[in-house]
Amino acid sequence: MGKKGGDYQLKTPKGTRDWSGPDVVLRERIFETITKVFKRHGAVTIDTPVFELKETLTGKYGEDSKLIYDLADQGGEICSLRYDLTVPFARFCAQNATQNIKRYHIAKVYRRDQPAMTKGRMREFYQCDFDIAGQYDSMLPDAEILRVIKEVFEDLPGWKGKYTIKINHRKILDGIFQICGVPADKIRTISSAVDKLDKSPWEEVRREMVEDKGLNPEIADKIWSYAQLKGGKEIVTKLQEMPEVQANESAKQGLEDMALLCSYLEIFDVLPALSIDMSLARGLDYYTGLIYEVVTEGSAPSASSKDVAKKEKKQKKSADPDEDRSNDPTIGVGSVAAGGRYDELVGMFSGKSIPCVGISFGVDRIFSITKARLGANQAMRPTEVDVFIMAFGGGKGFTGLLPERMQVAKILWDAGIKAEYMWKAKPKLQNQFKAADNSKVPWCVILGEDELKDGKVKIKEMGLSEGHPEKDGVMVEKTKLVDELRTRFEGKTSLPDRTVA
Amino acid sequence: MGKKGGDYQLKTPKGTRDWSGPDVVLRERIFETITKVFKRHGAVTIDTPVFELKETLTGKYGEDSKLIYDLADQGGEICSLRYDLTVPFARFCAQNATQNIKRYHIAKVYRRDQPAMTKGRMREFYQCDFDIAGQYDSMLPDAEILRVIKEVFEDLPGWKGKYTIKINHRKILDGIFQICGVPADKIRTISSAVDKLDKSPWEEVRREMVEDKGLNPEIADKIWSYAQLKGGKEIVTKLQEMPEVQANESAKQGLEDMALLCSYLEIFDVLPALSIDMSLARGLDYYTGLIYEVVTEGSAPSASSKDVAKKEKKQKKSADPDEDRSNDPTIGVGSVAAGGRYDELVGMFSGKSIPCVGISFGVDRIFSITKARLGANQAMRPTEVDVFIMAFGGGKGFTGLLPERMQVAKILWDAGIKAEYMWKAKPKLQNQFKAADNSKVPWCVILGEDELKDGKVKIKEMGLSEGHPEKDGVMVEKTKLVDELRTRFEGKTSLPDRTVA
Repeated sequence: MGKKGGDYQLKTPKGTRDWSGPDVVLRERIFETITKVFKRHGAVTIDTPVFELKETLTGKYGEDSKLIYDLADQGGEICSLRYDLTVPFARFCAQNATQNIKRYHIAKVYRRDQPAMTKGRMREFYQCDFDIAGQYDSMLPDAEILRVIKEVFEDLPGWKGKYTIKINHRKILDGIFQICGVPADKIRTISSAVDKLDKSPWEEVRREMVEDKGLNPEIADKIWSYAQLKGGKEIVTKLQEMPEVQANESAKQGLEDMALLCSYLEIFDVLPALSIDMSLARGLDYYTGLIYEVVTEGSAPSASSKDVAKKEKKQKKSADPDEDRSNDPTIGVGSVAAGGRYDELVGMFSGKSIPCVGISFGVDRIFSITKARLGANQAMRPTEVDVFIMAFGGGKGFTGLLPERMQVAKILWDAGIKAEYMWKAKPKLQNQFKAADNSKVPWCVILGEDELKDGKVKIKEMGLSEGHPEKDGVMVEKTKLVDELRTRFEGKTSLPDRTVA
Repeated sequence: MGKKGGDYQLKTPKGTRDWSGPDVVLRERIFETITKVFKRHGAVTIDTPVFELKETLTGKYGEDSKLIYDLADQGGEICSLRYDLTVPFARFCAQNATQNIKRYHIAKVYRRDQPAMTKGRMREFYQCDFDIAGQYDSMLPDAEILRVIKEVFEDLPGWKGKYTIKINHRKILDGIFQICGVPADKIRTISSAVDKLDKSPWEEVRREMVEDKGLNPEIADKIWSYAQLKGGKEIVTKLQEMPEVQANESAKQGLEDMALLCSYLEIFDVLPALSIDMSLARGLDYYTGLIYEVVTEGSAPSASSKDVAKKEKKQKKSADPDEDRSNDPTIGVGSVAAGGRYDELVGMFSGKSIPCVGISFGVDRIFSITKARLGANQAMRPTEVDVFIMAFGGGKGFTGLLPERMQVAKILWDAGIKAEYMWKAKPKLQNQFKAADNSKVPWCVILGEDELKDGKVKIKEMGLSEGHPEKDGVMVEKTKLVDELRTRFEGKTSLPDRTVA
């Protein structure tokens, strides 16, 4: 990668890439699918700047703050590239004293992390966020977010039934930590350790808790007895039946929320995709209630726990964020979507809280997995052109019919039809067919000198099988060309990647 | 603007803004209009990173290089935010040894310039670019670009017939400079001065040429005699009939190009929007052939030449790019689209040239003007929701029908219908109507306890006039709700901003 251009490397910066060809076509389709779901639920988009005042981002990301990209100080304000879309959204709500909004935002975010290109982990990547701000009756916006998650993954090609929504509740988790006897000032850091259970084995997480974070080993083992609980809505009942849990105010409240949520998710038919998972904790500080993460086959590392432990050690040693780990097979792609409730974040800006709940889809990871799943099956059209205009002829007297081709192009464009012709005065017929074929253009309009004199042109649909009545094309009146084409477009719109009209 | 949040300003960085509400809806529509035209002409999109290696941008923008935003040096590569989409495109073509491509790219670019928010000039703004790379017969891609410009402005709401495409040719211009006697090493800088004629009076430009740039006053006056030439394709003939012009190889070639182009633009019906203008020079260094700029009413400053001269002086004195000139009425919005042919830019990266021609639409300026033109006429729907689901009832026994409303929502979402309900267990009917009204939702589905027992629900179209047979709504079978709604959606799709199905 990267060609020498003069005396420097011709490349994109580390951890970034160009998107082009079939990749960008597939990614655009993923964006469209997700946007359609967001709009189905009444969301509007907002667009915030790519960089924010540095102080807007300060104190929001805990340990990950070191991954923030800063702009150079060129005089004036000190700014940083956004790290996610959530903090800018909270800043927006605070600044505008927003009372309620359902907003979506599809845009790039920036993290100076170790890139792992093959796993779809980049320094510049897209997030697709949907958040709901406002005071509403309990668990109703939360239920809607979870329904949105389900619709997105049901609608994405290759994902139906292949994803699990893991959920938990910060209040349940905090209650459990209290029950186990975790000191109040250690709850957040122990929570971070628990969150690693999807990537690391218990022994490693226990070691971190006890050795690195000074937790009493007995408390750690108690945590483990709860952290293993996972399953359907019966987990809620199970926890509610434990006297020590029911006696804890935080856990009790969280479980009531969860029970109500499950009753809503039953109506919305989301329960089959749900896994209530006591080992889910989420790293970020700002969550206050429900938290969730979507995982899929391939989300978790396939490595043995020994490898993982080795990796963790290696990571500890090498603090160099520029180290290339793109070929490290122990790195899983992580979750493909994640989010939760964050009722205090807006208040950090304005002093006035607005309850918020949201979801962020990691669309670049979703892209990588979708691409692998679709494989070579998916022959997408590289462009949306529906008609290629050609000149028939050759030999000595052949003019190339350039003005005539241009004139037909103009007629089609005027009618809103996507059309091309070859930018050559005297093109060979076979080269024109080759160009149409390369772009997988479904129809050709072929002009011949004699036919034009009679006011006629030929329409030919590409790829018709032998014996089809229009296999060799049909002559139509030039004045009726647009209508004749539109008639042929109809009924074809259901074909995959046909983008007529 | 900017609310105090704790001890710091709650705001976006200088020269940037949030986009939300009707503004973002209108801007999205502008993007859609432009994208549709690009796709009609067979363009595919590519997406390059927001920042490039600093050396990729170095030496491409002449005097404007000082406006480039740099990222902080946090170890590793030195990067800068992109200044436009053209240089990244050329880097992409060189890196991938692209032979030919028609690409469009709609994305933000960054310039550390003096913001003038009211004129739509920001430090972060969108560009919509369409470029064609590849070796083709003369003037054919150029003609297509000009046709694309016409289609965009014909399709944008409020622009039909209200724009002028000014074009010129670097070879004609260079020839004229040679004829006038401008020394070879002064051609680019004198060209930059000529380019200011759309904003400054001749006296000021002449002063710059003579006093600042040391040009012989007689040569300057000779330039002025040519620079005033503007008009339709007759300008080409007029210049071709001047013996001194015809004797200049560069001018002769440029005029042949221009004559051929005009013959193509006649077929494409672009000539009525065209003004061949010898005072158009374009600032950037990399253009090698045709250049063009789109102006509209309001593009040029309305100030008198005295004011302009005053402004120029003021600008000279204050080199502070942080000075706020947002209320300076002498600043015009400039061109709303601009581009040209740049056959050497890709070669600057790879040593191997690929001919390129393109256009960049300044969509934020286009937005400001479109918004002003549409004015209050344009009542856009804030969301795309088509159905609001309500509970009818009240009083003591009223349950709020929450599970029932959720269940209907699920049915509609399953059918792909955009629907909302109020996130309240027991909402008042009038509050539900108010919410539907605020979002301008066109249909309501109203649930009543008794009707549900009979398996029926009511559909009500909002805003029907007195006497309409369905003014008070119609009862339909709940099992047939989706079909009944779809029947009502049909035939409504042509209404402005109706986004059903």
